[in-house]
Amino acid sequence: MTEKNKKEPLYFFIISDSAGETASKLAQATMAQYPTVEFEIFRRTFITTKEALIKALTDAKKCDAIILHTLINEELVALADHFCEASELFHFDVLTPPVLEVQRRTGVIPSREPGALHHLNKNYFKRIKAMEFAVKYDDGKDPRGFLEADIVLLGVSRTSKTPLSLFLANKNLKVANLPIVPQAHIPKQLWEIDPKKIVGLTNDPEILNGIRKERMIAYGLNPDTAYSDLDKIKTELTFANELYEKLGCIIINVASLSIEETASMILNALNLEDHSYYITEDNEA
Amino acid sequence: MTEKNKKEPLYFFIISDSAGETASKLAQATMAQYPTVEFEIFRRTFITTKEALIKALTDAKKCDAIILHTLINEELVALADHFCEASELFHFDVLTPPVLEVQRRTGVIPSREPGALHHLNKNYFKRIKAMEFAVKYDDGKDPRGFLEADIVLLGVSRTSKTPLSLFLANKNLKVANLPIVPQAHIPKQLWEIDPKKIVGLTNDPEILNGIRKERMIAYGLNPDTAYSDLDKIKTELTFANELYEKLGCIIINVASLSIEETASMILNALNLEDHSYYITEDNEA
Repeated sequence: MTEKNKKEPLYFFIISDSAGETASKLAQATMAQYPTVEFEIFRRTFITTKEALIKALTDAKKCDAIILHTLINEELVALADHFCEASELFHFDVLTPPVLEVQRRTGVIPSREPGALHHLNKNYFKRIKAMEFAVKYDDGKDPRGFLEADIVLLGVSRTSKTPLSLFLANKNLKVANLPIVPQAHIPKQLWEIDPKKIVGLTNDPEILNGIRKERMIAYGLNPDTAYSDLDKIKTELTFANELYEKLGCIIINVASLSIEETASMILNALNLEDHSYYITEDNEA
Repeated sequence: MTEKNKKEPLYFFIISDSAGETASKLAQATMAQYPTVEFEIFRRTFITTKEALIKALTDAKKCDAIILHTLINEELVALADHFCEASELFHFDVLTPPVLEVQRRTGVIPSREPGALHHLNKNYFKRIKAMEFAVKYDDGKDPRGFLEADIVLLGVSRTSKTPLSLFLANKNLKVANLPIVPQAHIPKQLWEIDPKKIVGLTNDPEILNGIRKERMIAYGLNPDTAYSDLDKIKTELTFANELYEKLGCIIINVASLSIEETASMILNALNLEDHSYYITEDNEA
């Protein structure tokens, strides 16, 4: 077991009969455990024939890749198994264990259709609408959106309002967001909605200061502008926190959180977990 | 093995020390195989202590849930194993197999830090910038964005330009999009950029007609307006296809594709697969 030569990356092959999102997420989570190792991901997606699968596996074999697959066709799963065993290739079948467990419990036969191609159903429209909603009501563009939104995000500059809104939109939730600055007008609609729908985003002043300086540098500007002034940031945060308390909304400090983590906390806090992820044909809104 | 009573849903418990994105994707992919089965997903995320884990497992046991977990702390993994074996609960440890395989190959010890909390690095800024870029340059708002974009999406109405842009932005790509309508001005910037960056989206006229009628109904409008007129749609598609050919860009018919699938095809076609998913501290741009 020798330390791998740093010049030679470790290869992941994502093989899927669909878009490969599940296995890609897993590869990312794995890679995050090894910040010093260099990886390359290759995706072989929409693999639905034996020929395409053999080609993908042969490519994977050439670079002794770690294979993560989410194939659902039984013939293809068996082919991948046999190929990898014969070639002594590591492969991890991500989808089969939970699929078989559901079959064992329900007696229902899985559809074995690649992916979830229900994109013309109401769920698909709902998701598209949620994304369009997030873009339309981003950055306080139109406060009327607050009345229609599932979630209203408030936050001072650089608390990830836009990415968070878009991330939550991808989970079928209608999200509007409003930047909070001391001198700004607070739209009346904010007082008309259920405070349980509102999330106040805050951050540590030192971190905000760092982020804003970084951004000034990225934009080719002087980092020591008022935008990154620590006292000004503290005033903004105090104003925001007082507003959140008046509104009676939940407050999340995003200081040590990624977008996924903040989104997950919001779903937990607003009890949205059961509605957001998946809507079947039967129970769609 | 009796057919499960439809009134009683099958429960998935997503248990993660982070946001639970990987296991959630896997649960969704599994559920997609069983369109007739009613499921409920419960997420127990940011589980980083034994107490919190025991609470989550106890909740899962109460409804005999299918447990999918992505825990990285070895003590927690072992605790989950023992608890589930003692309680005869099905549990699938999604993360351990690929993590151990990387360790076996590289000799590097995994960090065992939950999630990938590198959110103040350049990768994080790049992703936030990509999302803000997508919102800023959505819907042809400013054609100067084309010059800066990694991908320019063109398409007639209802070819998922906005959701696709946002989905690709989440993979760190700067995406601008432009609606294509016969009477519209085509910005000169479109002829100045590498056609390899441009994706022309098209669709089947009958499907577009159906989608547009659905949307008219959803908006409470008469479905038989010019917007959904089949001849008009065909004229639009012909105009778009001729433009795509003149530009020499790739053309994707989204008729039978979900957003994930279209995005995956775009990454494959533009050879973006290696850059989009994950940037480590060492190789970030």
